[in-house]
Amino acid sequence: MTAGTAETTTLSSSELALIDAYWRAANYLSVGQIYLLDNPLLRRPLEPSDIKPRLLGHWGTTPGLNLVYAHMNRLIRARDVSAIFVAGPGHGGPGVVANTYLEGTYSEVYPRVGRDTEGLRRLFRQFSFPGGIPSHVAPETPGSIHEGGELGYSMLHAYGAAFDNPDLLVCCVVGDGEAETGPLAASWHSNKFLDPARDGAVLPVLHLNGYKIANPTVLARIPERELLLLLEGSGYTPYVVAGDEPAEVHQEFARALESAYDEIRAIQLRARERGAVGPVSWPMIVLRTPKGWTGPREVDGRRVEGTFRAHQVPLSEVRTNPAHLEQLRDWMLSYQPEELFDADGRLRPQVAALAPSGERRMSANPHANGGVLMRPLDLPDFRDYEVDVPAPGATSGEPTHVLGTWLRDVIRANPTNFRLFGPDETASNRLSAVFEATDRAWDAERLPGDDHLAPDGRVMEVLSEHLCQGWLEGYLLTGRHGLFNCYEAFIHIVDSMFNQHAKWLKVTRQIPWRAPIASLNYLLSSHVWRQDHNGFSHQDPGFLDLVVNKKAEIIRVYLPPDTNTLLSVADHCLRSRDYINVVVAGKNPQPNWLSMREAIAHCTRGIGVWEWASNDQGAEPDVVLACAGDVPTMETLAAVDLLRQHLPEVRVRVVNVVDLMRLQSDTEHPHGLPEREFDALFTVDRPVVFAFHGYPPLVHRLTYRRTNHANFHVRGYLEEGTTTTPFDMVMLNDLDRFHLVMDVIDRVPGLAVRSAALRQRMVDARLAARLHTREYGEDPPEIRDWTWPGVGHAEVDD
Amino acid sequence: MTAGTAETTTLSSSELALIDAYWRAANYLSVGQIYLLDNPLLRRPLEPSDIKPRLLGHWGTTPGLNLVYAHMNRLIRARDVSAIFVAGPGHGGPGVVANTYLEGTYSEVYPRVGRDTEGLRRLFRQFSFPGGIPSHVAPETPGSIHEGGELGYSMLHAYGAAFDNPDLLVCCVVGDGEAETGPLAASWHSNKFLDPARDGAVLPVLHLNGYKIANPTVLARIPERELLLLLEGSGYTPYVVAGDEPAEVHQEFARALESAYDEIRAIQLRARERGAVGPVSWPMIVLRTPKGWTGPREVDGRRVEGTFRAHQVPLSEVRTNPAHLEQLRDWMLSYQPEELFDADGRLRPQVAALAPSGERRMSANPHANGGVLMRPLDLPDFRDYEVDVPAPGATSGEPTHVLGTWLRDVIRANPTNFRLFGPDETASNRLSAVFEATDRAWDAERLPGDDHLAPDGRVMEVLSEHLCQGWLEGYLLTGRHGLFNCYEAFIHIVDSMFNQHAKWLKVTRQIPWRAPIASLNYLLSSHVWRQDHNGFSHQDPGFLDLVVNKKAEIIRVYLPPDTNTLLSVADHCLRSRDYINVVVAGKNPQPNWLSMREAIAHCTRGIGVWEWASNDQGAEPDVVLACAGDVPTMETLAAVDLLRQHLPEVRVRVVNVVDLMRLQSDTEHPHGLPEREFDALFTVDRPVVFAFHGYPPLVHRLTYRRTNHANFHVRGYLEEGTTTTPFDMVMLNDLDRFHLVMDVIDRVPGLAVRSAALRQRMVDARLAARLHTREYGEDPPEIRDWTWPGVGHAEVDD
Repeated sequence: MTAGTAETTTLSSSELALIDAYWRAANYLSVGQIYLLDNPLLRRPLEPSDIKPRLLGHWGTTPGLNLVYAHMNRLIRARDVSAIFVAGPGHGGPGVVANTYLEGTYSEVYPRVGRDTEGLRRLFRQFSFPGGIPSHVAPETPGSIHEGGELGYSMLHAYGAAFDNPDLLVCCVVGDGEAETGPLAASWHSNKFLDPARDGAVLPVLHLNGYKIANPTVLARIPERELLLLLEGSGYTPYVVAGDEPAEVHQEFARALESAYDEIRAIQLRARERGAVGPVSWPMIVLRTPKGWTGPREVDGRRVEGTFRAHQVPLSEVRTNPAHLEQLRDWMLSYQPEELFDADGRLRPQVAALAPSGERRMSANPHANGGVLMRPLDLPDFRDYEVDVPAPGATSGEPTHVLGTWLRDVIRANPTNFRLFGPDETASNRLSAVFEATDRAWDAERLPGDDHLAPDGRVMEVLSEHLCQGWLEGYLLTGRHGLFNCYEAFIHIVDSMFNQHAKWLKVTRQIPWRAPIASLNYLLSSHVWRQDHNGFSHQDPGFLDLVVNKKAEIIRVYLPPDTNTLLSVADHCLRSRDYINVVVAGKNPQPNWLSMREAIAHCTRGIGVWEWASNDQGAEPDVVLACAGDVPTMETLAAVDLLRQHLPEVRVRVVNVVDLMRLQSDTEHPHGLPEREFDALFTVDRPVVFAFHGYPPLVHRLTYRRTNHANFHVRGYLEEGTTTTPFDMVMLNDLDRFHLVMDVIDRVPGLAVRSAALRQRMVDARLAARLHTREYGEDPPEIRDWTWPGVGHAEVDD
Repeated sequence: MTAGTAETTTLSSSELALIDAYWRAANYLSVGQIYLLDNPLLRRPLEPSDIKPRLLGHWGTTPGLNLVYAHMNRLIRARDVSAIFVAGPGHGGPGVVANTYLEGTYSEVYPRVGRDTEGLRRLFRQFSFPGGIPSHVAPETPGSIHEGGELGYSMLHAYGAAFDNPDLLVCCVVGDGEAETGPLAASWHSNKFLDPARDGAVLPVLHLNGYKIANPTVLARIPERELLLLLEGSGYTPYVVAGDEPAEVHQEFARALESAYDEIRAIQLRARERGAVGPVSWPMIVLRTPKGWTGPREVDGRRVEGTFRAHQVPLSEVRTNPAHLEQLRDWMLSYQPEELFDADGRLRPQVAALAPSGERRMSANPHANGGVLMRPLDLPDFRDYEVDVPAPGATSGEPTHVLGTWLRDVIRANPTNFRLFGPDETASNRLSAVFEATDRAWDAERLPGDDHLAPDGRVMEVLSEHLCQGWLEGYLLTGRHGLFNCYEAFIHIVDSMFNQHAKWLKVTRQIPWRAPIASLNYLLSSHVWRQDHNGFSHQDPGFLDLVVNKKAEIIRVYLPPDTNTLLSVADHCLRSRDYINVVVAGKNPQPNWLSMREAIAHCTRGIGVWEWASNDQGAEPDVVLACAGDVPTMETLAAVDLLRQHLPEVRVRVVNVVDLMRLQSDTEHPHGLPEREFDALFTVDRPVVFAFHGYPPLVHRLTYRRTNHANFHVRGYLEEGTTTTPFDMVMLNDLDRFHLVMDVIDRVPGLAVRSAALRQRMVDARLAARLHTREYGEDPPEIRDWTWPGVGHAEVDD
């Protein structure tokens, strides 16, 4: 150890014997899961037929995880700690499953895997087996909030769990492979956003087992001095425990764990009782033990223990190679199972005594099944935040600005279980009203002139989408609520994390003992059409395409066209459970179209005809102008305005889509519109000019089975953009009002010839607008000042 | 300074005056770009009409970038250094553009922006202006390989540029906002993969200006002691330069830069002349200066300089507020432009003298326009690596294993300009043959038993997809070649980096002076259908959906069904330029279908009928069985086998797709198949059962405009999976041979009734297979051992 020195032994000889026995039991069960179909206690000679035909599992990281778990059990009992366990190396699934079984939790939630020989057999057989359980610390594993299938997010989930849980200790084992990833590397600094007075604690255990799949790891191969500097520089006080002699490592680890826990409590007490603030260096543990520790030292003459060859299955030919079979038997017997399990296969009570009981068991701690702790948010009535819309387009404002006032009151009404996350964009996304209720969480130095920073702030701002997403996931998985606001283009940074969370939700919905959790809510503001000032790199609406690949029962996409619809959608999202809701909404001033009453009705339907903008009353229209998204909606209505002026005889129906999944069939998505209703809206044979927020193929993808799909003509983002003006952006992508009118002329039978002159005027109007922007650097006044006919404008935000 | 102390002044008073003048000139031009439409030299009173109507730019980071640039100029001249400049805070676009203009490069590549008053006017006007240039260090900026629109990748691009460029110094300014991102946090450790003997050097300049958009930055607010520990722990020796008094900062920075450069050279010489290896601590600079330094100190009574309010435009109402206008004038005049520019607007020669000339100018260094340096790869003839396929399916092997032998020889033949990148998966992806030619790059500690680690290895393995991608981008952008092999599911980790590189390529293709660079090649092995052992978290084929959103002229997607097709595709990709090629190919043993001659013909067409598997010779088929991807191809052929046995009268046509974009119309993608050819392949009215590697909607998205699309029935990944067997995976997603036969029965007119019994047999076969896997833990032998009728199997890999 570095930060303290273990002069005296921490564990008595009986304590040492107990913890070692428990560790051996976990190791035994881990090996058994990887290898055995049957003969779980080796009470008869091991036969090839006892061995699984396909050996799928990861031994390398497992003994280290088991060691930490056993020692945490001792700490929990000794100090009556509420703790959960996050296993960064999710490949150590067999270890964590073994521990949850030893604690009894596993048999409680899966009674068919009982605490007897038959239960052991089933425990072993099911692991990484068809119809069984995954090889990771998956949702099926009690006590897990972190699968670890994709590496890098353990510390983020751990910190997310610790926020607003002052009595919780999150033990987070970080693999040294995982430590090479970007998200993990950045997440060490999460401690600058954790308030020791209000929040719980994370105890990182950096497990240096030295190797990844085929390579050493960086942190295991830099000079130890550098490693310690790195961790100290990240705001931690590392205790180093290193060795390969179990008894010594047990003593050192017990001592380090006690010291670390004492330090954590001291930090918390200082903050809670004396109000101490200022830089804190949190304790952590560096555990350096051999990869595949206690496994086969050599196989076929090659060193395995302590090398990358221990990563997965150290003995790979157990069914066919008698030497391997014998080595496996010797390996398993080296744990002395007869000392650990009685004749009926039950863990002996004197060994079981190490584990805590009831909800103190890490596998049964309710924080790790957050839905059971989740309290619904106390939501202020969003209708009270209505913006006045005496007539469509009669007023204008910034939708996210108004949303911010509602979120402010959500924060006030829910002072311990709701947070807002975003990469330094809360103000930029016009949600600043929340700072009337709270601050940005900040535990590093504060200086005069800083804007709303405080240790107990509820707005989590850090310039890392990974950190925002990971913290929020951890926060939700432990039963709380949140909203992630992000620039639309840069939400792609967490595509993969979104995928993994969607997969987690898909599986948990099928697990009866997992209680539903709050949905993961994205607010994508600063979207593709309003990044004219930031340029091409900031323009990408493709996240929606990724989202719709996931299971229909999980994902929801909303494109509210104005302020009142945004309020209605946001309220709906914050009430929902087990979904991922994606809301795309603008932050720039724009017309308000619907009163609150209309907005609620429209959002409830998710899609509908805007009668006031249509002139097809009582008849089939000549053309349907559909729109989804705020800017496409405005351009569509401006096109309708032009059509009314120049082609009043054309019967136009305007359909607005708030809930994108309404476009899909009800056989594909729970929100899908039945065929008949879809046909009623979009007709079966009239041209549909669809102005869409994102990439046009997404609309085709959702509607290709619809009756009238062949007549769908979709405009959207064509991957054209630069630093320019807002209207130039829509022109660059043929989504502008003039082009929509051209599309109508081109598509409505008979108009092409009859309206050739008008079409040319539209072409000329585009050119004139383009020349104007290039001359004056801003859009023509008639574009900027356009209003829906018959109304004046009034700003109503404030 | 910390690592050294500036006791003596480094700059003489004339040197100080010169560097300060140059810096002032760059600052002046930066402010001018943000604000002015006209009156560039303020030779007449500043009028509101001289001001841009929309002020779009970022001042905050700019003076720091300009300072570093000016000092680099001095160093380059003093020591004759070949250097390029990577500006992490891409928002500092006006600063870098200003410097390239001062160096003359800008006017060389854009002659209309000359070095006179009119040129200055154009320089100012075009910035962030419609029809002008973006606000970032975009492809349009000479000397840029890094836009910085999306933050986090500056160090990765810098290291990628330095690899294999022993004489190059990459000065990389890291913003302290950017430093909070995951990729940047992980990228400090790039130094463990850089060989001082073989590679060039990166000089990181961490610019602590203290603030992001609205917040302080973490690294600026932790105790300086912690910051230095963090950097030392990352393997750097930091020189700290801090201040707000220009003359002092100039002296300190000059001294730090010289010292850092001397240290870099010393490290390189030790390695190159004395063969020294072992841990190296590379010098770096921490520059702590106020945000918006030298800009307005206060605006409207609020502090701006040195706060987050300096992030964008410090004075926002210059057109309408006379006080702001006056403040702007005073600000610009504070740089004393009349000292810097002559009456004609030309930079005075005595100031221009600071900059190096010719290709020593960082904006004209050919490494930053890598295409001009790029040498085509010397590619061994891939046909020499042919696997023997005497008849379709007669042999089998691991496609990536054979590819590895070709890549081995690519590496041998191109020892300085080709590298292989991957997150610790080269061996796992069966490309181990490359280790016969080279090692893994590794500059940290090596131990006995390590597998192919060496400082000069050409395989870049680190457990971070971000690092792999970023290094490769930097390597390509500076004129070299590479291949990134990755698990298919986890390539989503770099979705956003892919997006940004695709955008970069889209723009560079429109810039005449940018020479084409080698394509970015992905090999996605360990794909969705062969992650049965790793489970649901490892199963995601959605990257392809992301890819097809980008510009058609940039993206290519290949799904070679076997070994010889993979070789042919890989050769094609490594010869191509300015594309992003995505190749999905298996690593598991599977049948070989095509001889090399057939493979080349098939890949050249990209799509085609497999006559030997079809029985529709000379007639319209009853059904088209289409397939794309190795596993779907095998299941399709197994289905054909079943149909031949049980429904020999059904005329089946088998169409295999290698080049996915052939599915799209030739009006949409350069590789798109003309309508007539598509109809000839897929018929205009027969059912098409399409077995696809990815999510089924992608095929619909690509084909919805095709004549016969209504009859397309696509099977693919339905987001179902877990840890199970390979065949169970395809069954879970209805992509298995039995289900494909059921699909044929359901879709070919008349079969549903006539073949009801056969259909039930297929249902029973699926059930039997499922029960078998659950009983025995592996697929039924008749599935595992299935071969194409009439052939035996032989392994031919080795």
